[in-house]
Amino acid sequence: MPQHFGDALVTRVRDLGHPLCVGLDPLLDQIPACFREGSMKPSDPATATSVEAFLIAVVDRLAGRVAIAKPQIAFFEQLGPRGVQVLERICARLRGHDVLVLLDAKRGDIGSTAEGYAQAYLASDAPIAVDAITLNPYLGLDSLGPFVKTARGAGRGLFVLVRTSNPGSGDFQDQLLSDGRTLYEAVAAKLAPPCDELRGPATGWSSLGVVAGATWPEQAARIRGLLPSAVVLVPGYGAQGASAADAVRSFVPGPKGLEGGIVNSARAILYSEAARHASNRSDWQIAFDRALDAAIAELRGAVLSRLG
Amino acid sequence: MPQHFGDALVTRVRDLGHPLCVGLDPLLDQIPACFREGSMKPSDPATATSVEAFLIAVVDRLAGRVAIAKPQIAFFEQLGPRGVQVLERICARLRGHDVLVLLDAKRGDIGSTAEGYAQAYLASDAPIAVDAITLNPYLGLDSLGPFVKTARGAGRGLFVLVRTSNPGSGDFQDQLLSDGRTLYEAVAAKLAPPCDELRGPATGWSSLGVVAGATWPEQAARIRGLLPSAVVLVPGYGAQGASAADAVRSFVPGPKGLEGGIVNSARAILYSEAARHASNRSDWQIAFDRALDAAIAELRGAVLSRLG
Repeated sequence: MPQHFGDALVTRVRDLGHPLCVGLDPLLDQIPACFREGSMKPSDPATATSVEAFLIAVVDRLAGRVAIAKPQIAFFEQLGPRGVQVLERICARLRGHDVLVLLDAKRGDIGSTAEGYAQAYLASDAPIAVDAITLNPYLGLDSLGPFVKTARGAGRGLFVLVRTSNPGSGDFQDQLLSDGRTLYEAVAAKLAPPCDELRGPATGWSSLGVVAGATWPEQAARIRGLLPSAVVLVPGYGAQGASAADAVRSFVPGPKGLEGGIVNSARAILYSEAARHASNRSDWQIAFDRALDAAIAELRGAVLSRLG
Repeated sequence: MPQHFGDALVTRVRDLGHPLCVGLDPLLDQIPACFREGSMKPSDPATATSVEAFLIAVVDRLAGRVAIAKPQIAFFEQLGPRGVQVLERICARLRGHDVLVLLDAKRGDIGSTAEGYAQAYLASDAPIAVDAITLNPYLGLDSLGPFVKTARGAGRGLFVLVRTSNPGSGDFQDQLLSDGRTLYEAVAAKLAPPCDELRGPATGWSSLGVVAGATWPEQAARIRGLLPSAVVLVPGYGAQGASAADAVRSFVPGPKGLEGGIVNSARAILYSEAARHASNRSDWQIAFDRALDAAIAELRGAVLSRLG
């Protein structure tokens, strides 16, 4: 029996007492000085080496402290095949540390192409095996089918974009439909059957979650109403300006505090002023731990705030 | 001065007299017998070797005969980093033969992530350099900005999903908005300013095109009305059941026949009965050429049909 992603994720979050997901966004111009080598241009082979050294150091600090990490695949793809090899090793290292891996890929395609993506990342013999992936719903429900099937068989998770955190997210997602709903509400409603079907036996949380940005807390609350058992991946906390209270707006009471989501933070943790300018790796480690602990403490406070 | 993608594409299509785009979809269970080695499972290293040998043979048959080819990145990603290396070499080989490369990746993300994807495929020093890429608009217009900027600077092209060819495409794309338009019409309307801005000096055709499936000819005609200078990438011709006449529904009269689009065909050309079962490569070559010539002849007929 493979694990059930929804159960595995929520159980780890409960054990750790916070919903932080650390975003692994290797921004070439932000990588701390003590990890930089060569020109740091995408085309320079030394750049992939620097990125890997930096991410290994980060991943080793996450072990036992966060439930899940989210590598953003674009930053690996920009380094070409070499970058994809780094991604493969970083994902394996995270899983070796018992940190779940959510690949932020926002894939969306149909039929055999969707099967190709599912095989690439979610199948039990995937070359780059991860625990969950983000998906784009624009092509319609049939585009999700192959992912749902593979997720069910291999115990993986899916996070479908519903309401993203960027300023332009309203361009299409907020379009008002003739039946009075917005597009993002129509998307959420369509996800209800597969979400329900993928609920976990232990916690009731589904392996089909959604993305709802912290920058739009009212919309996040509405999405919760439509999808009571979907784990919400919340981007936009920290660097994009949303508070911890906004970030947990879609959460509901659970046995150990508010639950039902994971809150992503990348830049505030990876690229704090102190971490970027640390002159050696032991100073970097201190700075990194401080930023990580601060985010954990803030989110722990937020999930405990409505209890007792 | 870099080339202008819209001008380069339309000029080549005019010179060749047909709008065929050959889809490079290496479906592992369909690759012709004479190229198969090992188990053909995604995890077997011999599989990438088979895929590469097959695609090299295909690409060498396309030289001088088609304006553009469309590799589907999912089928390379499913082979892991090895597959991405094959993609890199296949794209370089196509461009060496003077065939434009349209990478079907359907990417869509925001800010620095979108910049990462643009750097990965469209920048002049991209590790996997292609001439154009497909994009998903769900995240909003700001998600297209970095791609538009890179496309303008490096002379590349973009094809944004508007109305896809799959049966479920209507789930969201056909949602009726409160102002009486459908979602896909709202998407097309929002694309008008960047489409206009990227028009080519020689032909007037834009480097920002759209995807509109051959399976929905009425919708394709409506999209043409909203975006008069967008080149339309038309999937769904052949294997998905649409006729050549349906496929050119969004085309308009030009100096050498109907123009303003490219029509993709993958399976009918790559996996004809005769090609799949050819017992050696010279028989395969005959079968492949026959399927390619048939598609070219059919589309040539369709673009000439409303002339004279």
